Amino acid sequence: MADTVDPLRVVAVPDSFKGSATAAEVAAGIEAGVRAACDNAGRPVEITVVPFADGGEGTLQALLSAWGEEARSVPTVDALGRPVSARFGISPDGRLGVIEAAESNGLPLIDDAEFEPMRAGTRGVAALVEAVLDRGVSEILLCIGGSATTDAGAGLLAGLGARLLDADGEELPDGGGALAQLDRIDLTGLDQRLHRISWRVACDVTNPLLGPRGAAAVFGPQKGADEDQVRQLDDALDRFARTLLDDPESVIDKPGMGAAGGMPLVLHGVLGAELLPGAELVADVLDLRPTLAAADLVVTGEGRLDEQSLNGKVIDTIRRLTPATTPVVVLAGEVALDAAQLADRGLIAFSIAPGPRTLSELRTETHDQLRRVAQSVTAVFLSGARRSPPTETTESPA
Amino acid sequence: MADTVDPLRVVAVPDSFKGSATAAEVAAGIEAGVRAACDNAGRPVEITVVPFADGGEGTLQALLSAWGEEARSVPTVDALGRPVSARFGISPDGRLGVIEAAESNGLPLIDDAEFEPMRAGTRGVAALVEAVLDRGVSEILLCIGGSATTDAGAGLLAGLGARLLDADGEELPDGGGALAQLDRIDLTGLDQRLHRISWRVACDVTNPLLGPRGAAAVFGPQKGADEDQVRQLDDALDRFARTLLDDPESVIDKPGMGAAGGMPLVLHGVLGAELLPGAELVADVLDLRPTLAAADLVVTGEGRLDEQSLNGKVIDTIRRLTPATTPVVVLAGEVALDAAQLADRGLIAFSIAPGPRTLSELRTETHDQLRRVAQSVTAVFLSGARRSPPTETTESPA
Repeated sequence: MADTVDPLRVVAVPDSFKGSATAAEVAAGIEAGVRAACDNAGRPVEITVVPFADGGEGTLQALLSAWGEEARSVPTVDALGRPVSARFGISPDGRLGVIEAAESNGLPLIDDAEFEPMRAGTRGVAALVEAVLDRGVSEILLCIGGSATTDAGAGLLAGLGARLLDADGEELPDGGGALAQLDRIDLTGLDQRLHRISWRVACDVTNPLLGPRGAAAVFGPQKGADEDQVRQLDDALDRFARTLLDDPESVIDKPGMGAAGGMPLVLHGVLGAELLPGAELVADVLDLRPTLAAADLVVTGEGRLDEQSLNGKVIDTIRRLTPATTPVVVLAGEVALDAAQLADRGLIAFSIAPGPRTLSELRTETHDQLRRVAQSVTAVFLSGARRSPPTETTESPA
Repeated sequence: MADTVDPLRVVAVPDSFKGSATAAEVAAGIEAGVRAACDNAGRPVEITVVPFADGGEGTLQALLSAWGEEARSVPTVDALGRPVSARFGISPDGRLGVIEAAESNGLPLIDDAEFEPMRAGTRGVAALVEAVLDRGVSEILLCIGGSATTDAGAGLLAGLGARLLDADGEELPDGGGALAQLDRIDLTGLDQRLHRISWRVACDVTNPLLGPRGAAAVFGPQKGADEDQVRQLDDALDRFARTLLDDPESVIDKPGMGAAGGMPLVLHGVLGAELLPGAELVADVLDLRPTLAAADLVVTGEGRLDEQSLNGKVIDTIRRLTPATTPVVVLAGEVALDAAQLADRGLIAFSIAPGPRTLSELRTETHDQLRRVAQSVTAVFLSGARRSPPTETTESPA
């Protein structure tokens, strides 16, 4: 009987390559390359595959892949009130519901129509919330990026049972614009189950709700708002906040309230949601820290590795959660950081480009090149591991 | 007093990136990256820098860089008889002279003029040979690639003191075309020093001297010869071989005789030169084998890593001379081999492309990207070396 050789413990924990490959697809390329290198070297390997995400688009898919769960879906409406089927996820233990709000109020869903920034609303997101509540979850993880709306979650609140009334006691129509007519809010009809759950919201935007850095001014134009509409929406959100909250000043200037057309106003101000950086939140949900702590080698990936990557995003989060002595290797479509920047952050990075290529050429070979580079990286790591390690520097007695 | 940590022993032994960087420049990029990674890791390092070459263009420069010697030069003529200054090298011990024949008879030197395939000759190479003989060398290393000539070394022979005579006893003019008039050769005036030296010629071409795979048919057209001239030159070389040699049949079909317009006919047939694959020859001159045997990590490089690289060229030679357990990492402008092909040959390869780039964009950042990738590779290797090596598989008693 032969003694067994310790398996190499590798964690493949990439972000998606936006526009090219999902996180699960990137992870599959990495896994194939790592396995090939270990096979070639006769080294057993244990690979933990964790498709990762930053709390933005693709987070639901990444979590489902990591959990080995299927997406569920519920009929609801898009930002303009048109029927749409929206996906959500439930964790294997049934305790956590995962929602990407943009499955209902996302900008891509309405790119076939004329943008209507005053009328676009978040009512459809409520159907997703109700659907996960129906599954008996105790916590909701909500990703809010990519929205077409600027209603500060008014539609969501109404969809969950609140009544937003004008001076005549009539319910307001959907959309941020209508909030200019808001007189009072009746929360008595709000779904009672909301009192028994907790919320975490993935939010990497630090904008306040109102003013020149607010939801309307900064994000309104990309949702179709002209200068005048931005002013109207800003005023309407102000009115909504002051009507909704007892102490509006303590909330509206909070960093992050301006995300997703102001949705955190309702999520945090009414529903008690905690806003957290997306990558950190996802890492926490996936319980990544012990996984990373057990690794010999961590391989992650991102479409473009640049200064943004170092700022609380996927790569930064993985490096922070991985012990300093464990290498974190980033495979990227483009490495836009220089060697010194990488070394400063304790990162090692390789592009998957095999030579001169256009972006579209490179996209057609993402899997093969990920595999090739992952194999090469693992081969170098294993060849390093085969050389005797350096003698420890020890102080001899004086 | 602290115990010293074993230095990491790295050999940086790249080919040039043709059109982008000399072998010495590539080696400098690799060295910078390796040093940075070792500095960051607090690991001492010993880097041996050996600019390498395949016996083609750039071999003289690579050897001079490896030796830390300066090029010398001598006035001579180009393939069309026009004055030109040609460089040569002498090894530090003074025993070996290095000549690239194309410094005199090279095609690039005459690209300002009309090609004259019948008249182009190798007489100018003789001045280089005389110059190294004047330095008292005991061996000449001659690189013959890139020639504009198809004279089978007739000009070289004449320049060294032989007389090529027509039926009237008149000396022939230079060029392969004139050999059609050759009647006899008088070798009595040949430089007597040639008897006391040995020659090695870098030759990766396996073509015979004559016929459809011969010097005129295969390489004549790129030197300006039309169909009729190819035929005339083939006949002329045939006549030269039969006039020059007692036993022409044993020589003219030898693989390699068709290289460089047939120069090996004179070099081998008269001067006794040994023809050798260029990369192997250069490796031997540089005494690479013990250097590679002492390395923990070998980093080489090539502009384009493809199937040709595996065929007796630089990368193949380095892999063959390096112990199988030592990793050979290739940094390339383009990696055109897939992971399986690389693994089969025991090679690990990375492109220096940091993302989507055109070839010309990539060329402007060759040094920085070489440095970045070398640093990343070394960091991975060191991080592998820091992890405990796998337990040896041992058989326990039955």
